[in-house]
Amino acid sequence: MDIGSTAEDKTRFFSGVKALAGELKAKITSIAKSFKKLGEDDPRRLTHSFKVGLALSLVSLLYYAKPLYDGFGLAGMWAVLTVVVVFEFTVGGTLSKCLNRGFATFLAGGLGIGADHFANLFGKKGEPIVLGILVFLLAAAATFSRFFPRMKARYDYGLVIFILTFSMVAVSGYRVDELVVLAHQRLCTIILGGAICMLISIFICPVWAGEDLHKAVASNLEKLATYLEGFGGVYFPSCKDEGSGVVSKDHNGNSLFQGYKSILNSKNIEESLANFARWEPGHGRFRLRHPWKHYLEIGALARQCAYNIEFLNACIDSDIQTPEEFKSKIEGPCSRMSAECGMALKALATSMKTMTDPSSAKPNVENSKAAVNDLKFALKAASIENADFLAIVPAATVGSVLVEIAKCVEKISEAVHELSERAHFSRTVEPTVSPEKPPQLLHRGVIRPASDVTDDVHKNVVITIHETSTVSPENETSGQHEVPKPEPSYSSRTAAASANTLTSLPSPCGKEP
Amino acid sequence: MDIGSTAEDKTRFFSGVKALAGELKAKITSIAKSFKKLGEDDPRRLTHSFKVGLALSLVSLLYYAKPLYDGFGLAGMWAVLTVVVVFEFTVGGTLSKCLNRGFATFLAGGLGIGADHFANLFGKKGEPIVLGILVFLLAAAATFSRFFPRMKARYDYGLVIFILTFSMVAVSGYRVDELVVLAHQRLCTIILGGAICMLISIFICPVWAGEDLHKAVASNLEKLATYLEGFGGVYFPSCKDEGSGVVSKDHNGNSLFQGYKSILNSKNIEESLANFARWEPGHGRFRLRHPWKHYLEIGALARQCAYNIEFLNACIDSDIQTPEEFKSKIEGPCSRMSAECGMALKALATSMKTMTDPSSAKPNVENSKAAVNDLKFALKAASIENADFLAIVPAATVGSVLVEIAKCVEKISEAVHELSERAHFSRTVEPTVSPEKPPQLLHRGVIRPASDVTDDVHKNVVITIHETSTVSPENETSGQHEVPKPEPSYSSRTAAASANTLTSLPSPCGKEP
Repeated sequence: MDIGSTAEDKTRFFSGVKALAGELKAKITSIAKSFKKLGEDDPRRLTHSFKVGLALSLVSLLYYAKPLYDGFGLAGMWAVLTVVVVFEFTVGGTLSKCLNRGFATFLAGGLGIGADHFANLFGKKGEPIVLGILVFLLAAAATFSRFFPRMKARYDYGLVIFILTFSMVAVSGYRVDELVVLAHQRLCTIILGGAICMLISIFICPVWAGEDLHKAVASNLEKLATYLEGFGGVYFPSCKDEGSGVVSKDHNGNSLFQGYKSILNSKNIEESLANFARWEPGHGRFRLRHPWKHYLEIGALARQCAYNIEFLNACIDSDIQTPEEFKSKIEGPCSRMSAECGMALKALATSMKTMTDPSSAKPNVENSKAAVNDLKFALKAASIENADFLAIVPAATVGSVLVEIAKCVEKISEAVHELSERAHFSRTVEPTVSPEKPPQLLHRGVIRPASDVTDDVHKNVVITIHETSTVSPENETSGQHEVPKPEPSYSSRTAAASANTLTSLPSPCGKEP
Repeated sequence: MDIGSTAEDKTRFFSGVKALAGELKAKITSIAKSFKKLGEDDPRRLTHSFKVGLALSLVSLLYYAKPLYDGFGLAGMWAVLTVVVVFEFTVGGTLSKCLNRGFATFLAGGLGIGADHFANLFGKKGEPIVLGILVFLLAAAATFSRFFPRMKARYDYGLVIFILTFSMVAVSGYRVDELVVLAHQRLCTIILGGAICMLISIFICPVWAGEDLHKAVASNLEKLATYLEGFGGVYFPSCKDEGSGVVSKDHNGNSLFQGYKSILNSKNIEESLANFARWEPGHGRFRLRHPWKHYLEIGALARQCAYNIEFLNACIDSDIQTPEEFKSKIEGPCSRMSAECGMALKALATSMKTMTDPSSAKPNVENSKAAVNDLKFALKAASIENADFLAIVPAATVGSVLVEIAKCVEKISEAVHELSERAHFSRTVEPTVSPEKPPQLLHRGVIRPASDVTDDVHKNVVITIHETSTVSPENETSGQHEVPKPEPSYSSRTAAASANTLTSLPSPCGKEP
């Protein structure tokens, strides 16, 4: 081996080390970045971590402080164990685990001592056999009852601790004579550890499961609203310049249009939050017996709506052939429907967030209902003119989905109203508009105000002319809508009024009907 | 108080006691019944409970058997604790917890002893302070990293045990001088408890998470299939007598039509099963590195399909006005599409269950694609005749949803094919039918065999006549379908062939087209 090759080897070695160091540095930087992002996404995570550290340090005092150590001895370990196992992110989670652990330990400790006394009756030989059978039976029964969905949801941890404590007390009772002292020490240290957890969890930057649930459900409604408000602009590109079609991005750079997807699988999160929320004391705007269960109903309806939107999304992707001309005909009612649904949901979300009366959403819900009827008229009108049925089916399907979504939004509105009553949302002044006639039909970006055509008689004249007109199906280029005689099923005042409005108003986005 | 009233009181008291006893008895009976049902629904739950009892009894031996007790002393407690906390329903769950617990204890124990030595350098006064700071920092860091979704999924329990062990070793090190002995004892008992759990879990009636995942995904496909196979008969009642519309019930008395609903929220279950399955050794038909992750993809597609079905269900409920006459026109392709999709899914599910080549589903997928084209032709034909567009939109929407479902089923078929390759499903003989021309168009209950019309030339003549025919839209009663000139986009051989078949075959359910 000559010197040259050694030098080369050295260079190679150092460059290898350098590359490795570079890789390591890149890896560490990426981990640090994801740590940072995790903290920035929800700073409460950082706080929670420090809270756990604090609780553990406090419990360590048991060991460091001599008087405390003399009182508890090795059993002080249980306090450390309790803190680590019991401290959860939310107050409700911590309380549920603390209380489960406390009660289960107490109950199982008592039962264990009883079992020990009972086994004593069978003499030195029989005792271990009897204890073994008892442990087997109780462990099997408790394990089995963990499969009950209701038990699983609320007392799962308690059942585990029950089995644990009972086995330990019953088994160790065979050896340790000072059984009661042990049980007492264990209970005391668990209570101490649990108390530290509960106090820190409640009084230092508390994270309330109930509040999280409240916000999560409201924000789900908002995500649906964002999609629906933007939908018109995306599906009917001619509307884009009016502002409703701007696809905005959230701070993570994801399209807000994808936001609804997180709702599809929200069931488990909402259910566990609702379970934890039951354990929480009254806090802030929430009383002790806040109707948490009702949030699950709203959540389920929001999911239903999200399923429909998921299908709507698939429709948009696969719809590439619908003639613009047909689209422009249903554009008005469709974009109005989705926009009104979006605004209704946004109003409901705001009402939930501020815990005020959700009546402000009512006009939007009524408008969306009116738009459903408008769509029906538009479809009726389209049928005579448009012969290429196959090409327009995708657009008609989009209309059907929007109708389903409008129904869903109505149900959500009812559910939020019920919640507002049960949870005593603060009342605001009732809107003066009666729900009979559709108010606020004209709003930004979707319908232009028609200041020149305002009197009802004139509108009626317009529709009468159309009713009697006999334009042939081929007369598409004339740009005239045919409104057939309203059927009895759609002759309600709302439908008729809105149909009149549709025929007499200039169509959205400046296209003449 | 006279004697009469006392006697009356007594009677009242006894009747009260009797009523109470009756209530109690009813309550106990109902609880016992739900216990029984829980066990009957999945008998493995009962086995699992007995397995836990057995493991605990075995661990108790540590205490009962004198030689073992002399070796471990009080540390034997940890074995009991390990068994209770670690024993999960599935093998994968148990293994994951055991290994997490073992490694975390080992690692944290080592670090704890190191921290103790390090703190020793700071003298008697500095030691508790340094230890406190170390505990605080490590606990906070480990708690924070539990928020990483990947860590949460796989190592959550390990992180908890890491914090626990480190705190206990570091803190108790300040008091207990035989630190290494303690750590060693703890590790040994944990390994002992863990080993008992793992052995019982693997060798006594094992519940494999992987197998559960495999079965769950296959059964989800079956649930979708059940819905789709029955759909035709429910939506097109004229088909009911042909047998496809019989709504069957499962052993719980629920309509099998509601089965798909459980798929909507299956994500969490599937993900946790897949997470557990990674920890399992090869078992039965599954090798060590079975592509468990791929099941999640199939599961996601099944959920997508279930979302569409959910919307389809809403369509059926709200569709009460579609004229039978239009329905009968799309009945053929629609019921064929749903039936073929259902059969394809059933074939895919069977192929997954038996782990054989899924090629038998291919003809059904091709048929469903052909039916999609048939539907397009039927819609094109309907457009000329049928002027009441509004009334037929719901039925057309149903058709669109079915088209989306057919797309979904095709994707599922591709995913199952990919799985079959990755997981080396056993190959069977390839079907001889080429996918170019749709085979098996005729099957039970939906299409009647047309034995008299079989040659291609004749079919082509039929369509040529239709293409040149100029039947007026009013000529509905003549019972003739108008098939317009196929557009370039639909002029593929498959589409043309199936369209020909459609026009030349008698329509399903015995109704002439």
